[in-house]
Amino acid sequence: MITIAVDAMGGDHAPRPEVEGSVLATREFNDIRILLVGQAPVVRPELAKHATPNLPIEIVPASEVITMNDHPAQAFRRKRDSSVHVAARLVREAKADGMVSAGNTGAVMTVSRFLLGTLESVDRVALAAPFPNARGGVSVLLDVGANVDSRPEHLVQFAVMGEVYYRATFGNRRPRVGLLSVGEEEIKGNVLTREVYTLLKKSPVHFVGNVEGGDLFSGSVDVIVCDGFVGNIALKICEGLAVSIFDLLRKSLKSSILSQVGAKLSQRAFKGLKKKIDYTEYGGAPLLGVRGVCVIGHGRSNANAVKNAIRVAAGLARARINERIEQELSATAVPA
Amino acid sequence: MITIAVDAMGGDHAPRPEVEGSVLATREFNDIRILLVGQAPVVRPELAKHATPNLPIEIVPASEVITMNDHPAQAFRRKRDSSVHVAARLVREAKADGMVSAGNTGAVMTVSRFLLGTLESVDRVALAAPFPNARGGVSVLLDVGANVDSRPEHLVQFAVMGEVYYRATFGNRRPRVGLLSVGEEEIKGNVLTREVYTLLKKSPVHFVGNVEGGDLFSGSVDVIVCDGFVGNIALKICEGLAVSIFDLLRKSLKSSILSQVGAKLSQRAFKGLKKKIDYTEYGGAPLLGVRGVCVIGHGRSNANAVKNAIRVAAGLARARINERIEQELSATAVPA
Repeated sequence: MITIAVDAMGGDHAPRPEVEGSVLATREFNDIRILLVGQAPVVRPELAKHATPNLPIEIVPASEVITMNDHPAQAFRRKRDSSVHVAARLVREAKADGMVSAGNTGAVMTVSRFLLGTLESVDRVALAAPFPNARGGVSVLLDVGANVDSRPEHLVQFAVMGEVYYRATFGNRRPRVGLLSVGEEEIKGNVLTREVYTLLKKSPVHFVGNVEGGDLFSGSVDVIVCDGFVGNIALKICEGLAVSIFDLLRKSLKSSILSQVGAKLSQRAFKGLKKKIDYTEYGGAPLLGVRGVCVIGHGRSNANAVKNAIRVAAGLARARINERIEQELSATAVPA
Repeated sequence: MITIAVDAMGGDHAPRPEVEGSVLATREFNDIRILLVGQAPVVRPELAKHATPNLPIEIVPASEVITMNDHPAQAFRRKRDSSVHVAARLVREAKADGMVSAGNTGAVMTVSRFLLGTLESVDRVALAAPFPNARGGVSVLLDVGANVDSRPEHLVQFAVMGEVYYRATFGNRRPRVGLLSVGEEEIKGNVLTREVYTLLKKSPVHFVGNVEGGDLFSGSVDVIVCDGFVGNIALKICEGLAVSIFDLLRKSLKSSILSQVGAKLSQRAFKGLKKKIDYTEYGGAPLLGVRGVCVIGHGRSNANAVKNAIRVAAGLARARINERIEQELSATAVPA
């Protein structure tokens, strides 16, 4: 049995999708038990809406709530009984094998980094974002914002952690690792990436060289490494552009009666496309390098996204991802 | 009369779109004269296909051709009679008011930077990429790849150059300038952007603060400043994602007869959308900071894109953009 602590108060629509996602997860996966962490007076009636007599779901009270507007460091210091704090403590005390939150990403990162601590061989944790690629597979970009101003050895650690996560989650034994840069040749890039290139060539990861911005979606590579400043900008560009294109498409399709009829007939195709690029299928972004398993969902997570985040967290716990990261990093001799 | 030197050998389909775009430009704009630079035996028959007896188009011979595979620095040194070299010399010798090329971007930047030189008050040139935003306007991102590893004062110069270019090209007297970062607050960002933030606050540009990746398309800002490493990755992500979404859409729409009929009915809407986000309308990216006007088009430029690049180059020459950049930069006291 794998136990996952779910922050019931985190997302934009909490606690509804968190509770429903937990119910779906326990119904679909036999070996998952949920600790729903949050304000009991809010969470209990929500849970009561579902027919859950025999489901392994338990409410763990937490009196405070971190909002999307809270400043991460302040929330960490001042809201010590928040659902995020309590979930992280459950993981630290081994009462849960992992935690899931769709709350304030910065706050969840800060709280879990400080309460769980980082792994022995890890200097900096990294947030890894999975997304669909053109070959029907998944590519993972990291770091997407746990750090700014990383040193070369940090990026090498990101590469190793990303590789271990990819292997554990997407069933690929030897994922291809690329370094995000501005050209494929070794000499292309900035001071940081040129150093990282040299280090990755000597590392045990399956390093395929520099990749460019377009390779995020080409499927030519499985794990893409970059510093958190670049990765965060990249992630937000993707979200922004996808939303813009669909908005423009919707407006275009409404512009005439003919195209409205056409859109109606094509509805299933649009839905198929939406499902294909639906982030909720990928279940959130793991924070790699903390002592424990922490998966962070999008604030807009629906029940399906929460369910999948729980699935991913359980999978990482089951795969003992942190033991594997420690093993592989101890084999990666990187000068500090 | 404004004279523009057009590299007839540059793009993926040269010289056809270059010649046709030149013909279109001279037909549409009364005050533009074209010098078509390239191998006369190739360019002349292409030009002869158009009814051009009275159009102000002249062929200027250049014996060599820089290909997309040529290494920029090598091409600069070894192909001294390339169409790019000859076009840049025409600008340097004031025989042309500006140049346009859809060739190897790195090579065009290298050749024009060295042959034209940089402006007195500019330390680093910057490549500026215009693209459509969700409000139906245009946003400009710079630098998208003329440099890697920029210093804070370089980004301030990019901001000033971007503002002057925006004003001259898109008719906005006080464009809003944002700094690409990972959060809106002043303290968000990396070492570089935090310093740039402080400098931009004191500068004469209309600085609206940090913006995030999603703001590239939101239209909340007109000019977005970043270093060339980040900007180049951002640009390639946009190109890659847009292509991926349209590919997936096309495949989805072909998946059933019903949706095929629907797509047929919606055809005009799709075309409207495509036109809206069509880069060819924006006429390429100016290389700002060189002594002269240089506009670089996409390798896939069609005749319309070449025509618009010529229009943009003529507009920048007419607006005496470099005098304005020098004026504004001399008013921007930035400690070196």
